[in-house]
Amino acid sequence: MELRLTSDEVIKLHKGENIYSALKKAGIFIVAPCGGKGLCSKCKIKILKGEYKVRSYGKLNIHERESNLSLACQTYPQGDIVIEIPKESQLVIGDKIAIAKTKDLIELFKSFKVSITPLTKRVLLDLPKPSITDNLSDLERLKRAIKDLGIKNITFSYDFGISMSKTLRESEWIVLLTYVDRGNSSAEALFLSHPESCNRRFGIAVDIGTTTVVVYLVNLINGEIIDLGSTYNSQIRFGDDVITRIIHASEGGLEELQEAVISDINNIVNSMLQRHNIEACEIDSASIAGNTTMSHLFWGIDPSPIREDPYIPPLNYFPLWRAGTVKLSINPQAPVYTHPCIASYVGGDIVAGLLATKLHKNHEISLFMDIGTNGEIAIGNNEWIVTAACSAGPCFEGSGIKCGMRATPGAIESVKIDPITFEPFINVIGNITPQGICGSGMIDIMSEMFLTGLIDQKGKLISGKTNRVRKGEEGLEYLLYRSEDHHKDVVLTEVDIENLMRAKAAIYAGLTTLLNEIGLSIDVIKRVYIAGGFGAYINIPKAIMLGMLPDLPLDRFVYMGNTSLTGAYLCLLSEELRKEEEEIASKMTYIELSVSRKFMDEYVSAMFLPHTDISRFPTVASLLSEIMTPKKFWLFTNPEQDTS
Amino acid sequence: MELRLTSDEVIKLHKGENIYSALKKAGIFIVAPCGGKGLCSKCKIKILKGEYKVRSYGKLNIHERESNLSLACQTYPQGDIVIEIPKESQLVIGDKIAIAKTKDLIELFKSFKVSITPLTKRVLLDLPKPSITDNLSDLERLKRAIKDLGIKNITFSYDFGISMSKTLRESEWIVLLTYVDRGNSSAEALFLSHPESCNRRFGIAVDIGTTTVVVYLVNLINGEIIDLGSTYNSQIRFGDDVITRIIHASEGGLEELQEAVISDINNIVNSMLQRHNIEACEIDSASIAGNTTMSHLFWGIDPSPIREDPYIPPLNYFPLWRAGTVKLSINPQAPVYTHPCIASYVGGDIVAGLLATKLHKNHEISLFMDIGTNGEIAIGNNEWIVTAACSAGPCFEGSGIKCGMRATPGAIESVKIDPITFEPFINVIGNITPQGICGSGMIDIMSEMFLTGLIDQKGKLISGKTNRVRKGEEGLEYLLYRSEDHHKDVVLTEVDIENLMRAKAAIYAGLTTLLNEIGLSIDVIKRVYIAGGFGAYINIPKAIMLGMLPDLPLDRFVYMGNTSLTGAYLCLLSEELRKEEEEIASKMTYIELSVSRKFMDEYVSAMFLPHTDISRFPTVASLLSEIMTPKKFWLFTNPEQDTS
Repeated sequence: MELRLTSDEVIKLHKGENIYSALKKAGIFIVAPCGGKGLCSKCKIKILKGEYKVRSYGKLNIHERESNLSLACQTYPQGDIVIEIPKESQLVIGDKIAIAKTKDLIELFKSFKVSITPLTKRVLLDLPKPSITDNLSDLERLKRAIKDLGIKNITFSYDFGISMSKTLRESEWIVLLTYVDRGNSSAEALFLSHPESCNRRFGIAVDIGTTTVVVYLVNLINGEIIDLGSTYNSQIRFGDDVITRIIHASEGGLEELQEAVISDINNIVNSMLQRHNIEACEIDSASIAGNTTMSHLFWGIDPSPIREDPYIPPLNYFPLWRAGTVKLSINPQAPVYTHPCIASYVGGDIVAGLLATKLHKNHEISLFMDIGTNGEIAIGNNEWIVTAACSAGPCFEGSGIKCGMRATPGAIESVKIDPITFEPFINVIGNITPQGICGSGMIDIMSEMFLTGLIDQKGKLISGKTNRVRKGEEGLEYLLYRSEDHHKDVVLTEVDIENLMRAKAAIYAGLTTLLNEIGLSIDVIKRVYIAGGFGAYINIPKAIMLGMLPDLPLDRFVYMGNTSLTGAYLCLLSEELRKEEEEIASKMTYIELSVSRKFMDEYVSAMFLPHTDISRFPTVASLLSEIMTPKKFWLFTNPEQDTS
Repeated sequence: MELRLTSDEVIKLHKGENIYSALKKAGIFIVAPCGGKGLCSKCKIKILKGEYKVRSYGKLNIHERESNLSLACQTYPQGDIVIEIPKESQLVIGDKIAIAKTKDLIELFKSFKVSITPLTKRVLLDLPKPSITDNLSDLERLKRAIKDLGIKNITFSYDFGISMSKTLRESEWIVLLTYVDRGNSSAEALFLSHPESCNRRFGIAVDIGTTTVVVYLVNLINGEIIDLGSTYNSQIRFGDDVITRIIHASEGGLEELQEAVISDINNIVNSMLQRHNIEACEIDSASIAGNTTMSHLFWGIDPSPIREDPYIPPLNYFPLWRAGTVKLSINPQAPVYTHPCIASYVGGDIVAGLLATKLHKNHEISLFMDIGTNGEIAIGNNEWIVTAACSAGPCFEGSGIKCGMRATPGAIESVKIDPITFEPFINVIGNITPQGICGSGMIDIMSEMFLTGLIDQKGKLISGKTNRVRKGEEGLEYLLYRSEDHHKDVVLTEVDIENLMRAKAAIYAGLTTLLNEIGLSIDVIKRVYIAGGFGAYINIPKAIMLGMLPDLPLDRFVYMGNTSLTGAYLCLLSEELRKEEEEIASKMTYIELSVSRKFMDEYVSAMFLPHTDISRFPTVASLLSEIMTPKKFWLFTNPEQDTS
């Protein structure tokens, strides 16, 4: 059977296979946060021709069903079929931010003033051919030549042993030896190759996020980024956040979680190999940055101890294991550098991020915030770094928010609400029909609603001012976008606002608890690095207004984009930077917030807009007093409580 | 279906399975040099009850067929069946010689005056439990404790990484760490175990012969040999000698050759584990001695270069790879020590053998001869050792000899021929009906025939003296044992004698060529160590008589038994002996006989009884002149040539 796309691509279909699965196998990724499990109702496709059976229409409304829309993961073709992938279902390869920053990465690398020293070294060996008088065995012959290079001790893996002689003979004793330099004149042999094949050198830098997986294909000769690709982390089908995945792993799902993320990376890598006509064997190193749970799952190591008191992970520093052990589709002998983790909820993504910001090189104190699926914070300078994880949850990535979505086309990314009419003015990524709200949009909406008095300081919606505040299925909601047939309305509900309040409170409380631990006040922070996929879209003043970010001068804030990926790229290229990163990791002091009474107090105080202690947000206080003079009453009190 | 033996053992039978295969699966090995391929007609069984189909009766005669004898590998039961395994088909576990020497091995080990230092070390670690204040990850926690032991650098394999945390937690942070000490304060972690399970320590010492595989199970605490087992090397089904196996490997059979020998070892080990109630994980090291081809096939490394000019093997020194890489059924993390090889046809079995003889420790010059499937020679002392391989062929192990067999019950092991009547007096191993002739029997018979004038100096049979010299299928033959119905007569044919002449000539020519190379004469040899499965049975004076062994005083000859296995045992127990063995290997100079003109000349001269130059065998000459006075004519000339 065949599946034909409007782009004229033709894909093979197996009997009993659903469209989502067939597309995925062909390397075509569509939006499906649940991973094709029939839970998110987002993998919509339009059937143009052909017979098919539908297992469930999920949350598709009657209008959608009538226009032949269907969920790819629930649709089973019964013969040849022609489909269209609507724009809203198309997964944009690469975050806008990641692509934007790509060009700057080589400049950033250059600014470290280190040379390119990948994980592996390669040397040309021209061995004398064996003869009856020079009768060393092949391995001894290699060792003799290697000793001449100044390497005294070299180990040879079993895989090296079984393939060595064939290559030596086929290439007539002139070979490229790829090895890992272990220092102290010792090394680990990886593989031999013919000088004229498998002689280019590429590496991959990978950011394994809880929600997305991003891969750079890098030329290891000059540091050039040849391609990048991204996809949802298909572990999502086993749960949105790290906790549910750890539970799944401990209940026998470890292997499928590992397979999920490995196949995500392999799907991206394989399509890159094809696009650029590169052999898998030419990719001879990998740099993997992820949070602690993602790092464990990548290697197939049971992460259960992460969520068991006292929350100590099995590994923080990962040995330089081989790509082949986890079936990564690059050279199986390629060493894989895993960015060091600090604690159960501060992982290699944060350490990589700190390297990317150079926080550890400056005397002035900086704050690093990564607001992704979780929320990690680090404060420090060239002498010390403290760090903590504040479980902010994945709502800024769209999860747990009724109309939440990632920052892909169709997402409302910024909003202005008219203070008189309460009508919203929205900006949508890709300038198409709005499909939902991304993280930056949520912050915009909340601060606008707060400023215009549509919500009170506790985050409760005020009804009666506009019919855009209406009763929805989950209680009160604000209507952001009214679709033609009302079935695709985009709203923000009171439940959503509560989730967002919790997230912003956790982040701010984490920050203040950390400062408290080290006995410093907020104004010592001279720079705030905002990292994470959605960081770049944040409207900083509005985030300060909500009390999510500290009330510091705006020129101290710097967008950093996906710093985890940046750090992965930097460490792929340089031994010095890998050492620098390890120094960062060894310098970091982890503070466990979950057992801190101080944190709980701070959290409760932060469950208010912007904060119960308004003196901590002086610019917000002055802005509010400026605009609220005539409306003071409803801005600072809940009218329902003040009807007396 | 069930297969019942007269011993009342009951074995499960699968449909379409032959009896040989079912027996093998159940760990019951019967004589089958061809490995169950229907070629050798030796796996005879007697069917007592049940329906069965026979694919071929092979060389079974009509009488045997009528008594319900059948070949196990060609017999397919059609339902429950009862069989008897005749004594001649029973494979004796362990050569007589190997068992005999077992008791002496601990004494031999003690004589080296070294302590027991297996390949692995084991240490009890009592780790502080992790807490929020002592929050090192599991691996860092281990590293800290290991550092306290004085080990600065330790590497952790992937397999260690994925299993570590479970063991640590289950055994409440008190664990046994097994590791390999790499010297220079560095080590390789192997595995963790609970202090109360998997806490005994065993190892296996293995001799992989071209024809047989022998395994010792050793207690690593006190050196005690707990059990030994042996079987045919089932690679035999792909060819009798190393050359045919190398060819098979190069033609795509590498994997099946490796699987064959691994499963042979595993079959023995598994039955040992059961017998002694030992867990596979408790066997944490292995020592493997074999010729160069066997060593390569064990590891699954293509041995093709061994038989390609200039005959250089891929490896002589094998890294300490893990048992799991080749699916050995012991602890998968166990390091496997492969005895170092010298050249394509002088392997680890010879180096192990030299260690066992202590040749390398004495000032006096000794000769070491291993006459097994091949024929390897070493001459030397504590300063130098030269070595060579003379392709003697496997005839002394029964191959290529019409009634040849291994030294198991039923084999004629010694013979005396009456010089008047030419009637033979035979000794049979196990005192049962003779089934064939083993190596020592062949030497006996030939020398007796020579002495009594039944063969001439060229090895030609003389007819007309006795009707025991008769015309057989393959020309003239001497009847050693007349069976009741003539169907199981044991004979030695002229073709057999020719093969034996070639073998003895190759051995003696190898020895003289080697002496010639180093410019010494035969009488410098103060000791001759005879190794190899069949060595112990040799009647030395008779072997000298044939010109196979040098004409030296008898008290210089020492039987050594299976020195390869002895060396494997010694190196399993001691790091010092492993180093000593490596010194032996590095001291050995290999002489390639196949390109030596001198060797060819010596070989041609040695194709005579005892030698064309009788002055090299003074005691034989004097013996001959003594007994032949009246018979001089026919002893030194071929009567057929002298009828003039």
